[in-house]
Amino acid sequence: MRLATLLGPDLKATLATDPEELREALEEFHPEDIAEVLSELDGEDAVALMRVLPDDYAAQVLERLDDEIRARLLERMGTDQAATLLTEMSADDRADAIQELPEEVAEKILDRLEKMEPELAEEVRELVAYPADSAGGLMTTEYVALPPETKVWQAIEEVRTASQSRRAETISYIYITAFDNKLVGVVSLRDLILADPGRELAEIMTQNLVKVLPTSHQEEVARTIAKYDLSAVPVVDDQNRMIGLVTIDDVVDVVIEEATEDAQRMGAVVPTDEAYFETDFWAFIRKRATWLIVLFLGELLTANVMKSYEAEMASALDLVLFIPLIISSGGNSGSQSSSLIIRAMAVGEVAPRDWYKVFLREVGMGLTLGLILGVVGFARVYFVGSHYSVPMSLAVSLSLVAIVTLGTLSGSLLPLAIKRVGLDPAVSSTPFIASLVDVIGLALYFTVANAILIAGAP
Amino acid sequence: MRLATLLGPDLKATLATDPEELREALEEFHPEDIAEVLSELDGEDAVALMRVLPDDYAAQVLERLDDEIRARLLERMGTDQAATLLTEMSADDRADAIQELPEEVAEKILDRLEKMEPELAEEVRELVAYPADSAGGLMTTEYVALPPETKVWQAIEEVRTASQSRRAETISYIYITAFDNKLVGVVSLRDLILADPGRELAEIMTQNLVKVLPTSHQEEVARTIAKYDLSAVPVVDDQNRMIGLVTIDDVVDVVIEEATEDAQRMGAVVPTDEAYFETDFWAFIRKRATWLIVLFLGELLTANVMKSYEAEMASALDLVLFIPLIISSGGNSGSQSSSLIIRAMAVGEVAPRDWYKVFLREVGMGLTLGLILGVVGFARVYFVGSHYSVPMSLAVSLSLVAIVTLGTLSGSLLPLAIKRVGLDPAVSSTPFIASLVDVIGLALYFTVANAILIAGAP
Repeated sequence: MRLATLLGPDLKATLATDPEELREALEEFHPEDIAEVLSELDGEDAVALMRVLPDDYAAQVLERLDDEIRARLLERMGTDQAATLLTEMSADDRADAIQELPEEVAEKILDRLEKMEPELAEEVRELVAYPADSAGGLMTTEYVALPPETKVWQAIEEVRTASQSRRAETISYIYITAFDNKLVGVVSLRDLILADPGRELAEIMTQNLVKVLPTSHQEEVARTIAKYDLSAVPVVDDQNRMIGLVTIDDVVDVVIEEATEDAQRMGAVVPTDEAYFETDFWAFIRKRATWLIVLFLGELLTANVMKSYEAEMASALDLVLFIPLIISSGGNSGSQSSSLIIRAMAVGEVAPRDWYKVFLREVGMGLTLGLILGVVGFARVYFVGSHYSVPMSLAVSLSLVAIVTLGTLSGSLLPLAIKRVGLDPAVSSTPFIASLVDVIGLALYFTVANAILIAGAP
Repeated sequence: MRLATLLGPDLKATLATDPEELREALEEFHPEDIAEVLSELDGEDAVALMRVLPDDYAAQVLERLDDEIRARLLERMGTDQAATLLTEMSADDRADAIQELPEEVAEKILDRLEKMEPELAEEVRELVAYPADSAGGLMTTEYVALPPETKVWQAIEEVRTASQSRRAETISYIYITAFDNKLVGVVSLRDLILADPGRELAEIMTQNLVKVLPTSHQEEVARTIAKYDLSAVPVVDDQNRMIGLVTIDDVVDVVIEEATEDAQRMGAVVPTDEAYFETDFWAFIRKRATWLIVLFLGELLTANVMKSYEAEMASALDLVLFIPLIISSGGNSGSQSSSLIIRAMAVGEVAPRDWYKVFLREVGMGLTLGLILGVVGFARVYFVGSHYSVPMSLAVSLSLVAIVTLGTLSGSLLPLAIKRVGLDPAVSSTPFIASLVDVIGLALYFTVANAILIAGAP
């Protein structure tokens, strides 16, 4: 932020009087820092600032802006400048930027791009066809691919040219494609510069390579890259034709974004991709009220359940004292199970087909944890509240065992079921599980208490 | 797993009769896949399999094993082979591997390493001195650093040599260090291969570079790399002397690991770094029972609170019906706030010093959400339960406003406070916030109800 305060007051003046000096000063900073400053400016100043920067540098700044701010800026700067800057961006960021624009504006800019560089426009149209959270949506089409009979020295020349014209997002890997663009191998730059210049790529390439489909979900792409310690993974169609490349820097963003979404869903908030302080107050209220109201309507059932046991409560008011204790224990054990299972699914350790193994494990877990809490509960009711009887203590204790088991089972199996039907398992949030367990748990508690206290009484 | 089933039954036989054929077959696979197979073997077979593999390949497999399995394997294979394989590993993985060993075994292997390659042993001792979750713990000491007056052609030669001897974890960047190892600039391999071979690095290097301290927490390192889209970040001491390098592939693992830990903490589980099905049943019980018991003991207070309002409950049993509804609403709004704030802190958007801004925002949020639920609650109590009075409806409704506000405030401020005292904010888990709100919420509800119903009655 040092940069922002440095520029802040004088920016307008300097923009008007001495743009050249400003440009030189700005180029000293990382594009990320310029992007931060730009986000704070009003639209007019932001456009003026962008105009001062050299095109390739301005494009790098654009790549680093938040989606919304970038869209507003591109709209505002006019079709010509927008199209020019877009040609300087990397293929995947360019497609993302256009995808974020209002359709009308996007079409205008694409038409202009068509006239300037028809190949680029075509490529953008291909890339925006994939969902943003798929490998196709993440991939770039700029990479180095060469035929297997290329000599090592020729390949090094190609890498140089690709670097020079910035036609490759990464030069760490050179992909080997044969007839009809089929991906047959890969050579790392490291191996390339070590190899005898006269050999052919076919002789030094690795044939056994990891790849993903364009339809693969971004979480799967991230897992693949993390698992095999890759710095990029090629995207191939179902005919093994190479169509793109996902690089690790995009994956870091994906992993962070997915973890944030999951954390928010698990806390019963409709996910927001904006920063906490940047999310509009009323937007937040909507994202939170939606779930709060759903959960509230669900919890209303607890009043109905209790109403139907009013007679029992009136005859044994002590029963009531332990209600929050008992239902919250079910919610807590359910919260543990759901966070373990949701996370295990996110990193690919558990899948819906494992439900029976999970079921067996969580039954054992629930009974054991329930017994532990049951013993503590028994002691509390029997010894501390001196006038309580064994039956009362037993009612609390047995209810705890049942409810903790109910909690672990719903907390673990619901996320699996939700994933099975194709939804995000994280929507079975901790509060969602807790509400469910509250309603069923109350009925359980009263049934157990009824059996032991009322039916057991002479 | 295809590989595992392929090898499974015959592995023992092939190991004994035809190790050479086995070696050739295995080398076709990615070391990650071999590591997976190895994890399933018993100790003896695993050591035998490692012996079959060429050292550099075996080292790559070792790098990919789970910490525990790797430690057991290294222990079992004996000091000589272990030390040999360690020399083939990358510096950061080597230090991690030794750190995981029982002290005695680690010392023995280090002594052997000392005799084989004294420099390596020295380096390991330096690296293990840093906490595993700091930049120092993540960094490698293998990178290319050259003086500023180096010519471009010389630098390219150096990169070749470093690649050949695998003395660099990445060759994407060449670091420029001056007198006393001070870091003065960086040149990307891309720029290097494009530059005129006769120029000096000083002329083409970027001086404005992003760096971290060895004591920086791994989350901060990850944020820095993600923010600036780097593929590696240099680690410098407080004198700006370069001492190491953290590469992006380690950061991907860190981000995933931190997200898992946070998700587990937020679900009130003591974090486990093992996969769901691989965690021992009783280890899981311990990790879960700890928090469940703490929360249970806290929730016991709800019984005390209710006990002290027994007279009020007896005189207006209807009050009791809405207890689960009311306290759960506080827990839910608290869960939303805590997951938003914990995540915002994890990605660096919010820090404890922002507490006042957070406070203002969450008060507004709590009152608004509370009012929304209050209106729904009023309608339910007044219209559906036909015999309820306005005062009863009002008591429920006002309690909801108070408790939802209490929830948002404790959910947002507690994580900030916990972070402020240096603990992980994710320990203020959803169940933790819910329990706190249950106890205070009950007292609030009875106080409000008392004021409106009992004191308000003639």
